[in-house]
Amino acid sequence: MGNTFGQIFRITTYGESHGGGVGVVIDGCPPQLKISEAEIQVDLDRRRPGQSRITTPRKESDTCEIISGVFEGKTTGTPISILVRNKDARSQDYNEMAQKYRPSHADATYDAKYGIRNYQGGGRASARETIGRVAAGAIAKKILKEVAGVEIIGYVKRIKNIEAEVDSNTVTSAQVESNIVRCPNPESAETMIELIDLARKEQDSLGGVVECVARHVPRGLGDPVFDKLEADLAKGVMSLPATKGFEIGSGFAGTTMLGSEHNDEFYIDENGDTRTVSNRSGGVQGGISNGENIVIRVAFKPTATIGKEQKTVTKGGEATLLAAKGRHDPCVLPRAVPMVEAMVALVLCDRLLYHQAQCKTLVF
Amino acid sequence: MGNTFGQIFRITTYGESHGGGVGVVIDGCPPQLKISEAEIQVDLDRRRPGQSRITTPRKESDTCEIISGVFEGKTTGTPISILVRNKDARSQDYNEMAQKYRPSHADATYDAKYGIRNYQGGGRASARETIGRVAAGAIAKKILKEVAGVEIIGYVKRIKNIEAEVDSNTVTSAQVESNIVRCPNPESAETMIELIDLARKEQDSLGGVVECVARHVPRGLGDPVFDKLEADLAKGVMSLPATKGFEIGSGFAGTTMLGSEHNDEFYIDENGDTRTVSNRSGGVQGGISNGENIVIRVAFKPTATIGKEQKTVTKGGEATLLAAKGRHDPCVLPRAVPMVEAMVALVLCDRLLYHQAQCKTLVF
Amino acid sequence: MGNTFGQIFRITTYGESHGGGVGVVIDGCPPQLKISEAEIQVDLDRRRPGQSRITTPRKESDTCEIISGVFEGKTTGTPISILVRNKDARSQDYNEMAQKYRPSHADATYDAKYGIRNYQGGGRASARETIGRVAAGAIAKKILKEVAGVEIIGYVKRIKNIEAEVDSNTVTSAQVESNIVRCPNPESAETMIELIDLARKEQDSLGGVVECVARHVPRGLGDPVFDKLEADLAKGVMSLPATKGFEIGSGFAGTTMLGSEHNDEFYIDENGDTRTVSNRSGGVQGGISNGENIVIRVAFKPTATIGKEQKTVTKGGEATLLAAKGRHDPCVLPRAVPMVEAMVALVLCDRLLYHQAQCKTLVF
Amino acid sequence: MGNTFGQIFRITTYGESHGGGVGVVIDGCPPQLKISEAEIQVDLDRRRPGQSRITTPRKESDTCEIISGVFEGKTTGTPISILVRNKDARSQDYNEMAQKYRPSHADATYDAKYGIRNYQGGGRASARETIGRVAAGAIAKKILKEVAGVEIIGYVKRIKNIEAEVDSNTVTSAQVESNIVRCPNPESAETMIELIDLARKEQDSLGGVVECVARHVPRGLGDPVFDKLEADLAKGVMSLPATKGFEIGSGFAGTTMLGSEHNDEFYIDENGDTRTVSNRSGGVQGGISNGENIVIRVAFKPTATIGKEQKTVTKGGEATLLAAKGRHDPCVLPRAVPMVEAMVALVLCDRLLYHQAQCKTLVF
Repeated sequence: MGNTFGQIFRITTYGESHGGGVGVVIDGCPPQLKISEAEIQVDLDRRRPGQSRITTPRKESDTCEIISGVFEGKTTGTPISILVRNKDARSQDYNEMAQKYRPSHADATYDAKYGIRNYQGGGRASARETIGRVAAGAIAKKILKEVAGVEIIGYVKRIKNIEAEVDSNTVTSAQVESNIVRCPNPESAETMIELIDLARKEQDSLGGVVECVARHVPRGLGDPVFDKLEADLAKGVMSLPATKGFEIGSGFAGTTMLGSEHNDEFYIDENGDTRTVSNRSGGVQGGISNGENIVIRVAFKPTATIGKEQKTVTKGGEATLLAAKGRHDPCVLPRAVPMVEAMVALVLCDRLLYHQAQCKTLVF
Repeated sequence: MGNTFGQIFRITTYGESHGGGVGVVIDGCPPQLKISEAEIQVDLDRRRPGQSRITTPRKESDTCEIISGVFEGKTTGTPISILVRNKDARSQDYNEMAQKYRPSHADATYDAKYGIRNYQGGGRASARETIGRVAAGAIAKKILKEVAGVEIIGYVKRIKNIEAEVDSNTVTSAQVESNIVRCPNPESAETMIELIDLARKEQDSLGGVVECVARHVPRGLGDPVFDKLEADLAKGVMSLPATKGFEIGSGFAGTTMLGSEHNDEFYIDENGDTRTVSNRSGGVQGGISNGENIVIRVAFKPTATIGKEQKTVTKGGEATLLAAKGRHDPCVLPRAVPMVEAMVALVLCDRLLYHQAQCKTLVF
Repeated sequence: MGNTFGQIFRITTYGESHGGGVGVVIDGCPPQLKISEAEIQVDLDRRRPGQSRITTPRKESDTCEIISGVFEGKTTGTPISILVRNKDARSQDYNEMAQKYRPSHADATYDAKYGIRNYQGGGRASARETIGRVAAGAIAKKILKEVAGVEIIGYVKRIKNIEAEVDSNTVTSAQVESNIVRCPNPESAETMIELIDLARKEQDSLGGVVECVARHVPRGLGDPVFDKLEADLAKGVMSLPATKGFEIGSGFAGTTMLGSEHNDEFYIDENGDTRTVSNRSGGVQGGISNGENIVIRVAFKPTATIGKEQKTVTKGGEATLLAAKGRHDPCVLPRAVPMVEAMVALVLCDRLLYHQAQCKTLVF
Repeated sequence: MGNTFGQIFRITTYGESHGGGVGVVIDGCPPQLKISEAEIQVDLDRRRPGQSRITTPRKESDTCEIISGVFEGKTTGTPISILVRNKDARSQDYNEMAQKYRPSHADATYDAKYGIRNYQGGGRASARETIGRVAAGAIAKKILKEVAGVEIIGYVKRIKNIEAEVDSNTVTSAQVESNIVRCPNPESAETMIELIDLARKEQDSLGGVVECVARHVPRGLGDPVFDKLEADLAKGVMSLPATKGFEIGSGFAGTTMLGSEHNDEFYIDENGDTRTVSNRSGGVQGGISNGENIVIRVAFKPTATIGKEQKTVTKGGEATLLAAKGRHDPCVLPRAVPMVEAMVALVLCDRLLYHQAQCKTLVF
């Protein structure tokens, strides 16, 4: 069941790095939503390889085809199947990796679990798998926007130890997209790009932090106790490749404060709405959205596949050395931005539909 | 569906802080497991209120009753229902909170979502809800121990800014239980206890970090792509009350390293097993356990309910002040330790059973 | 997962015939529904043993306790836990059955599957398990009535070969409850009661057919392709003990007609609604309710446990004879009526909530 | 969620009659199973249109492509995506049906539910949707065969009122496939074919009954209480288009027997196994397989789409007449045989994996 996400707005992804293609089936999508391949392509293009010199040079247009579920430009309420064919597969690059396990990659654990592994390009463990998520996320974003004007904006907050100052309340998509590293702070962006360029040249890799804000999220989303909004968001983003940590609102830093400092005091705003003065809660209290901006951060480790030589072992149990071939990102962060946004959108859309079911059937 | 966790070893919890009681129904438990109320009570006692001067003074023995699913001391494969009655409920303490929203608590969001709220003792948002998880977790722990000798040990790693040095490879339960704050480092424990005592006297509260290690976890648990082990662990612990962050292995700190520094190089150990020299992965690669220790950290914010006076609003939309009555923990960390362990056990047990289903039916 | 039913209005039942009790946890119930133990008790009383001379003489009041999820007389949106304690358990009656397998009962298969079995009173395989379903069904019925005025009326259509003529369009609950066999046709009822009396005296048992109609069901419920309304109804009722068949609308008899005879022609009624002249579809077309009455029939086999001596084997593999002791129904049909109604209500309520989620979020 | 079936061996189907194609994603498939497109094609060919003069003349080769989840001829444990493109779509045939609702078809209810409908060829309500099920069923069959030698054989038992005598204990696939109506009794088959020929000429349609036997099913499959084997089988087959009824074992006929006549007495066979003399239970007792043959019957109504003129209404609410164009089956039964087999295989495979998870983790 590991390839399905969501309870009502439910996606199932499939596909490997090499082979026929990758895709997604979306079940439970509301009918009568206008949607086109072009709209979905926007986010796929932000995710695709080869988009800039700091991403993997693999050449894939990642052009999507809607196979079902859309009729005359609108969703029909039946499953939406979206397929992206693999094109630029150089399987021969991976012959060495069929035998040698890449350190901190999924090669060894896939073999241990399944006893078999599609080793070409990382197989199912490739970040290429996220295409289905991003395509589905584009539809989820549109639903959220239509229903409540929700805006979801992700950006690179930190690369290695270069941390950008960004105001999550005001940051725009245009600022994020204004540079190839997707950091809305231009000075930080420049330094980050230099760092990545350097890592690439040295056959090494970098990690960092993506921050994501969701604005205008309706109050009431999230379902205690296990499907608390922060729990579902955590699961969603921690299921992305290369993630090592998750925070909402004040996160780990908030644990050093006193309760009297940390609590978000309430006030009544000019519209008579219950609001909080501060937002250390990150837009969620008791597992339920409170109408403030939802702010999360996700830690991405440095890319595991690097060209530098490392000690490793073979499938057969021999010690060896590996300098990985194949094409990979020196830093996944710029391409991880649309992935994080997609997971946030999928969670919010799923919880929106569930909320509609439980809380809007009897009472309007 | 928010009250069910797990796919095969699946628990459903119910109950509020005040009222008839709290409990859990466990479905999918393997048959023929020896289990008794006394074994379950061990973890419930570690979770219960009033266990020491640094926890809430509410007096509850939290004695559990197994209502079904166990016959002549063994599980039968049918659902195990466990009930704990509420005893020491002082509902009158909460009359003020029926009207005044506690800052950073769930009062306002429950009202916004459901339009109704059991305000006594926090209702469903009370940490009392976790009794069912801890009871189920005790059974999950036993299964994991019987099948593979898995040991799950949680402990307080940090209170406010007092961080304890602890070796996750060697820490023992006895060390954790040797003091009331559940920090296995005695010197740090002492300082932590003083800090909590002080916060309690000042009607304030503290947060911190719980670390948890799972040792002897079999290789192969966790199901890419959405049910990656780190994703399920993140969801599990982030569904606990008061959590703000999650890390596995190197976590956020790992993002400042180079790939060549961060990667866990492989070697073949004396038994011919594929092992890693370091463990920045935290026991999981590609979403699948690799046989190394699983190490996670969870950020808990300072308790929201405090005696200090704070600005807030009423249900009716009036600005007001609140100095919370009722009995609450100045710091949830000591009691959060068994909760975190329970969630880790529930995730591992569920993934163990799923792995058995998918990967052990055709191939033994 | 076998003990959970429904996707959004989701119930989990637990409990055995003997032991602490039986119960249900309902998750996903809409908040702000007025509900009381007394309302639930009405259907439990229709299900309980000892209600008449033609049911098992076991004396159980089956008094229910709402443990959680209801506050000041209304649902809160949190899980509703309902418990019924077992009282009149005569475990000693079952000592023989600990060893000897009752023909056509679950004794042997439970042992084969789980390797262990609570043999007292049939354990989990007892019809006592349905208490949780009936309690939850009472709440589902109320939601359906409040939202759309849905009426669900089950009745005994046939006992052995005595088939009653009943008009499903006009039958009332009062007619059903006017006699102890729950057949709304008084003459047929009388003969049925005589047949059951006779079977009881002869230590034998009878089967038959329950028919159930749901009126005023809104158009649009049911979710192609796998959660078609008839598929969920079939699963719901075929999960009741002793069921051997299911039909909707024309059922097996309809298979002998020509398409031109069988099709339900459409017309526009006085309100401008699209209606069908006939109702061979049984209120469902393409898996979706069409606004006509939903009519199903369920086959119940003769009770497996009988006092007459039968050939069987022991757990240890010895041929033997068994004349079952213990208290059992000579015919389950009268008590099965509220069980069938409950399953129909649970399915319709679940599909109502899902429909609200998918089809009422974007378009009102 | 309506497009997903199964809990562990879980399939999600998508696609409409016209448009890009139809397909399935299979999650949870055990790794290392040898499987090829050619093996899957065998069952698809038994299901495809145009296979004989008594099926729809639509020309589709229904050639399948495995897009993912299989590597070097073996399953990898990752999702298996299978796609069949639509080829011979004559959308213009359906222009009239865009406005006029076919009696007893899904046109009107889809419009009522979703407010939009892909009217070409019945859209999602077309039996073309079952391609994904049949493809997945072929894989499920292979797993069941490899693990336990399970044989699943469906056949036409009755067309209109021509009922064939067939011995479910000995019937072979070769006998079923020896004629175009898939009835293993040659004389009955001949009469059935004549009947269908006649109906086709008269622009009318016929229904009937498919029987299906599963032999060598291991003891212990099926999960009380809601996932009883008969409940899951009922749901599976009742989710197929045009079904009106389901029976297991003695079915409706069994309800007229006395318990002493109906019960399956036990004996110990030559291998020391617990067996039953008769098999009125149909291979399932208490929801769990007992090792005897599983025998079910499914009622299929006469095809709703017929060429004969019928009264109906338009989408706009006008009374009108319709003589359906397009290509359809005068009788779905011959092509329904592999569909029923597929659903039986999917249920058994899913329950096999679940049984492995719950009952084989602790005890071997």
